[in-house]
Amino acid sequence: MLPLFNQVVIVGPGLIGGSFGMAARVGRLAGCVVGVGHRAASLEEAQRLGALDAFTLDGAEAVAQADLVLLATGLGTLCSQVSDLLPRMKPGAILTDVGSVKGCVCRAAEEAARAAPFNKLPSTALRADRAGGGALFVGGHPLAGSEQRGIAAAKADLFRGALCILTPSPATDPHGEALRRVRALWEAVGCAVREMPAEQHDRLLAQVSHLPHAAASCLLNCVSDEALAVAARGFMDTTRIASGDASLWRDICMANREALAPTLRAMAEELARFAQALETSDAQTVLNRLLRAKERRDRRNG
Amino acid sequence: MLPLFNQVVIVGPGLIGGSFGMAARVGRLAGCVVGVGHRAASLEEAQRLGALDAFTLDGAEAVAQADLVLLATGLGTLCSQVSDLLPRMKPGAILTDVGSVKGCVCRAAEEAARAAPFNKLPSTALRADRAGGGALFVGGHPLAGSEQRGIAAAKADLFRGALCILTPSPATDPHGEALRRVRALWEAVGCAVREMPAEQHDRLLAQVSHLPHAAASCLLNCVSDEALAVAARGFMDTTRIASGDASLWRDICMANREALAPTLRAMAEELARFAQALETSDAQTVLNRLLRAKERRDRRNG
Repeated sequence: MLPLFNQVVIVGPGLIGGSFGMAARVGRLAGCVVGVGHRAASLEEAQRLGALDAFTLDGAEAVAQADLVLLATGLGTLCSQVSDLLPRMKPGAILTDVGSVKGCVCRAAEEAARAAPFNKLPSTALRADRAGGGALFVGGHPLAGSEQRGIAAAKADLFRGALCILTPSPATDPHGEALRRVRALWEAVGCAVREMPAEQHDRLLAQVSHLPHAAASCLLNCVSDEALAVAARGFMDTTRIASGDASLWRDICMANREALAPTLRAMAEELARFAQALETSDAQTVLNRLLRAKERRDRRNG
Repeated sequence: MLPLFNQVVIVGPGLIGGSFGMAARVGRLAGCVVGVGHRAASLEEAQRLGALDAFTLDGAEAVAQADLVLLATGLGTLCSQVSDLLPRMKPGAILTDVGSVKGCVCRAAEEAARAAPFNKLPSTALRADRAGGGALFVGGHPLAGSEQRGIAAAKADLFRGALCILTPSPATDPHGEALRRVRALWEAVGCAVREMPAEQHDRLLAQVSHLPHAAASCLLNCVSDEALAVAARGFMDTTRIASGDASLWRDICMANREALAPTLRAMAEELARFAQALETSDAQTVLNRLLRAKERRDRRNG
């Protein structure tokens, strides 16, 4: 099989980017995998662990030559990097990302596509397709990873069996070429791929990813030290995700605050309803709520 | 080593009671372990799996002859069983339990001790020690187990490294003999034992056991089906405990409703504060709450 892309650049080869590099190299999906980052030591380690064929601290040059750029940096910088890199890429090259929130990233790509000056475009053919710029963008989010971070936790089979959500937009990928080629790449590393609008992604992930994280943090914050000292396995499992990197999660929560805030309010109301059932000794309502939750979870599990 | 008790009766040898029987038999802690229950098939399986030396459906006779009775039934029947069994036991024999809520169980034992008629007491020496009845009671709660139930999930090392909380009361154990002997038993099966008043136990467990369960249920109940379909590992871990038996957890929540309801209200307020920080784009507060939670959990883990 021919590689799906010739020159692949991974910006920020940590847990997700590094695992992608490993999977791409093991599966011979890329002619060459080049890592871009700020710290040579991390990039050296990523290469040593098999995530990269080469690396450079000069992102601009690598990105200008890439056929595919995978942005695997945190949400704190992701949107500005999309705006910055998309206009520097080759016409027809593809930019994608792995950010946990898609609305802000996709809007940044759409604005970059609109704003890209025509004089950077070498091909008149491409001008007709796009409002500006020559590179294509499709947003992505592989639902893999853990509370760990960094290249040391990366592994080639991280994505096996995981869901990857792609959020296409006609403004940044008018003929769906980026969507098709990026989908093939994620499928090749073991993902099941689903497509949906960025807004839908953010609404769903607010509920099943960002809310659980915020709720685990709130649970920890309302428990006394004395109680924490007797916490057993159930408590530790329930709050495992709260040991994730705090600044990374601040960025995720802030980037998705419009979808997340109402889900937090909804859960607060659900907790208050449960409290009220206890306060009024309404055992039937308590049972109904517990049964409904158990049935929903068991159905998802089975 | 001599057995700690001669005749041990386990009422309800399921996950906890059955594991206790296995550990007691492996460690030769009892002269004989007798199971009591309603269904012969379950008791036969418990014996086959090594949890019991013998079993009977006639609980009254077994309890009357026992040196130690371990009540391992659910909170729906636990309190009435304590009231019922304590007066039937031999003077000096010990009743203990493994219930997840201790206040109601210990109050039932105290009332039974007060109400036991003197004419059931064969020894005048014991009369001086106790307001009534001849058997001693100490409440217990081994923090072990899982969302599984039943004898099939029992194992001899379930308690190894687990915390067991005992809730002594002078009204049911005036000289602390039951406390000392039951402590020795739980330590012999691998538990670290802590003593505290029943009210303190219930306040602490409301926070780190009953609240997480109720919160996991509330989380599941406020998530849409569409979102549930894209839930990944973090969500499933966070809600694992919500797949526990619903009627068992209804009984726990109802038995501890006075301590649990305020913790649910406190968590609802914590969620609302987090929502407000998002609504006002207050990234510093979001970071502070996430950091505090992460530090508290990591400290408990380390």
